[in-house]
Amino acid sequence: MTAPILEVYEDLLTRSKKLVLLSSAISILHWDMETKMPERGLGQRSEQLAVLDVIAHQELVDPKVAKMLEAIESHQDLGSLDQAQRRNVHLIRKAYDESARLPESLVADLSKQSALTVGAWKKAKGAQDFKLYRSELARMIELRAQAAEIMMQVKGTRTPYDALLDSYEPGMTAERVTEVFDGMRRGLKKVLDKIEGSGFEPDVSITERKVPVESQRRISDLAMEFVGYGPEGGRLDETEHPFSTGYYDDVRITTHYFEDRYTSSLFSVLHEAGHALYEQNQTPAWKYQPIGTAASYGIHESQSRFVENIVGRSPEFLRYMLPQVRSVTNGALEGVGLEQFVAAVNLVEPSRIRIEADEVTYGMHVIIRFEIERDLFSGRIGVDELPQVWNQKYKDYLGVEVRHDSEGVMQDTHWASGYFGYFPSYALGNIYGGMFLDRMERTLPDWKKGVEAGDFLPVKNWLVENVHRRGNLYDPADLVKTVTGKDLDIKPFLNYLDTKFSAIYGY
Amino acid sequence: MTAPILEVYEDLLTRSKKLVLLSSAISILHWDMETKMPERGLGQRSEQLAVLDVIAHQELVDPKVAKMLEAIESHQDLGSLDQAQRRNVHLIRKAYDESARLPESLVADLSKQSALTVGAWKKAKGAQDFKLYRSELARMIELRAQAAEIMMQVKGTRTPYDALLDSYEPGMTAERVTEVFDGMRRGLKKVLDKIEGSGFEPDVSITERKVPVESQRRISDLAMEFVGYGPEGGRLDETEHPFSTGYYDDVRITTHYFEDRYTSSLFSVLHEAGHALYEQNQTPAWKYQPIGTAASYGIHESQSRFVENIVGRSPEFLRYMLPQVRSVTNGALEGVGLEQFVAAVNLVEPSRIRIEADEVTYGMHVIIRFEIERDLFSGRIGVDELPQVWNQKYKDYLGVEVRHDSEGVMQDTHWASGYFGYFPSYALGNIYGGMFLDRMERTLPDWKKGVEAGDFLPVKNWLVENVHRRGNLYDPADLVKTVTGKDLDIKPFLNYLDTKFSAIYGY
Repeated sequence: MTAPILEVYEDLLTRSKKLVLLSSAISILHWDMETKMPERGLGQRSEQLAVLDVIAHQELVDPKVAKMLEAIESHQDLGSLDQAQRRNVHLIRKAYDESARLPESLVADLSKQSALTVGAWKKAKGAQDFKLYRSELARMIELRAQAAEIMMQVKGTRTPYDALLDSYEPGMTAERVTEVFDGMRRGLKKVLDKIEGSGFEPDVSITERKVPVESQRRISDLAMEFVGYGPEGGRLDETEHPFSTGYYDDVRITTHYFEDRYTSSLFSVLHEAGHALYEQNQTPAWKYQPIGTAASYGIHESQSRFVENIVGRSPEFLRYMLPQVRSVTNGALEGVGLEQFVAAVNLVEPSRIRIEADEVTYGMHVIIRFEIERDLFSGRIGVDELPQVWNQKYKDYLGVEVRHDSEGVMQDTHWASGYFGYFPSYALGNIYGGMFLDRMERTLPDWKKGVEAGDFLPVKNWLVENVHRRGNLYDPADLVKTVTGKDLDIKPFLNYLDTKFSAIYGY
Repeated sequence: MTAPILEVYEDLLTRSKKLVLLSSAISILHWDMETKMPERGLGQRSEQLAVLDVIAHQELVDPKVAKMLEAIESHQDLGSLDQAQRRNVHLIRKAYDESARLPESLVADLSKQSALTVGAWKKAKGAQDFKLYRSELARMIELRAQAAEIMMQVKGTRTPYDALLDSYEPGMTAERVTEVFDGMRRGLKKVLDKIEGSGFEPDVSITERKVPVESQRRISDLAMEFVGYGPEGGRLDETEHPFSTGYYDDVRITTHYFEDRYTSSLFSVLHEAGHALYEQNQTPAWKYQPIGTAASYGIHESQSRFVENIVGRSPEFLRYMLPQVRSVTNGALEGVGLEQFVAAVNLVEPSRIRIEADEVTYGMHVIIRFEIERDLFSGRIGVDELPQVWNQKYKDYLGVEVRHDSEGVMQDTHWASGYFGYFPSYALGNIYGGMFLDRMERTLPDWKKGVEAGDFLPVKNWLVENVHRRGNLYDPADLVKTVTGKDLDIKPFLNYLDTKFSAIYGY
């Protein structure tokens, strides 16, 4: 006798909930490792994580999961499942197919290696010495390549790197990314040319004034208050590289304070809070279900960059924030006018550090990483060449000289953690963000007036309703189509940039 | 064919390592819950912990473990295992027997309830309202009683409460505790009578002077530096109730700062650092093995109270610390002489708060908790009577009036976490500590001179070598016998008190 489909479905969801709980517990241990753990604890932490990763892997690839999936997929009442239920089944099937072929030993090795490589990266970055990082990174790449090879076969992608891309941005390929990035590069170059042709030079010295970390912490508080990211469901800590992590009622962010770049922390807090809002505002009824999470890394980045740039770097937000920042910085902003401030935090200038890059040149940083990743995984370049290739590309594409590897190939934590294929999401996030803005402005033509008065709520609500609450109900391309009615289009983002910077640079 | 015994043993140890890693990961999640977690995260955290507790439980009670244990225990080469190996087998057997009978659902319920009850306790304590705590506590007691009932049968103890006692102090019974505590009470009373008869009254106003939390943090740093508890393998945070938790290379402590009781944090930091040293200095080769951990909670308390009281409240340590404390407290200790300071921090006076109690009356606090626990679990009293019974006993035994339940029955976190049977360990810790001191003084007759010069290392090394490094190789009674050559004896502790307080109170 066949069990009723809903009964099998509920059993499947119960298993899935266990996995969600395991992975959210694991993310706390990772957060702790980055923020609170004593240095000597690294060895045992990597062993703890390896054990938990193996347990999660075993849970997922348990033959019982395959049986439940098959029972549902071949069930005569399959059509009786609603959209959300079918999507949950689809997502579990996808995760199962991606993982069932990965040997347990490889999963454990990847987990251990991630902790070790991040540890080596931290030391090497502090010491400005790539050699301290090289061999742990090489081992990480080797393990990730082994996994990608297996995933390529399961997913039927053309290359191992495409399999990695697909796990961050379902359906995306290196070929498509190259195509999209080509259009982006041309569009960004046009805006950049206009900016450089304007002859206007923002006075950035006003963002280089010394602001003590204690004052910057108060700026962070103001920023979090503005976006409605509060201590009841989150927290802010300090790490070398800012990040956000968490699930529904406990979503945490980090930042890094530089005494002589006080706006760096302001915008990283806005960025990470944008990520955090997305996780916090998932549909409550979907908690512990596969659909109750982000649609993709690219969509995630669209939310963080929307809050950081489209809202956070807008003249209207800055008009609201400037007096408040002034009041907590004890004279550091003396004599700074709004126009000056807006221009300074919107300075467009090729630079070395991705997370400090402006909205126009940012794409170039991502393109460099994308090309290097692609070439690493196709074997065209080796680990030892990384610093040299990196520095050459920064010279060729951005015209800047990298002085040492800590501001070069070791600036990001992603590769140390094994996140190859992630970087393109950042630029896709910009493109999605532009499309969302275009759509939002039809519903909320006056959103900037609210922001100017310190009211972020209408924008937040729009994002929650249109993006956050939809969780992982759609693949990213379908989500974008559902929200905007359109297919992937770089024009809205380029138009947004052109309009904004023509006003600031007066071209 | 029978597998070689060492092969089965290694398989068993591999499983055991997984359990150790799981439980150390779980302890980090508990630490995070107490120190860093946003309030709203309580629900999902308790679900995460429940899942992990169930997984750990399943790992332990896997029939394969029973098979391995049987294969080893009935093996012809059993005699070829060395002492450490046999002890590992014994400890896994004990843990298996204690857990295999606990239903998974009860383990999960206990884990969830612990998070909920601690949450309720925090709120209720803040609000000084036992009613906010009552029902969660009742549910915790009910679940713990269910578990104790099962454990009683497995262990063959006379009562469920004896089964709880045995899990903190192997072999201990309520009858034996009562007997030991009777001797203690009489001995303490004698010392107390002499002190009260001396007519001397320390000037405690000098420890009630206001010292800002920031200065107290610097005192904590000095204390941690003295005992050699550093940030490379530990960390200090702030919680309502101080605690320590961790494993080998990552052992953390917490404290609570009161502006008008600056010595409270000093001594709680010393206390928790004493716990931490014990975990940090386990035999490295035993890492991830059952023997690589504390012998019992009582032995654990002997280490924390040794550092806090025997060392930390000694005139010699205080002579070393006073000038340093003075230098970071900005005038708060103006005019305070050493004798005054020694007398003030060694004030003997019946009080309401256990963790603030002096070395002489401390035992009374423990006796009250012990009697209440015993009576709760025998059904002689119910949850609703707790505040009243508590307050009555404080009046009868200590002569003090409890003004509200936050300084009464809700002062400790132990019961909220489900730790019934734990409290007696504190007093046993004092007794063990006295015996260790007696033995140590034969090897290190001049230890106080070192402490006076800021040199804790000889004492630390003695504790490491004699107690810490022996881990869980012995049951506590055997450990004490191995270290001191003697059976449990309350006299050394009582002699220590009498000698110390006769000098301070001049009787």
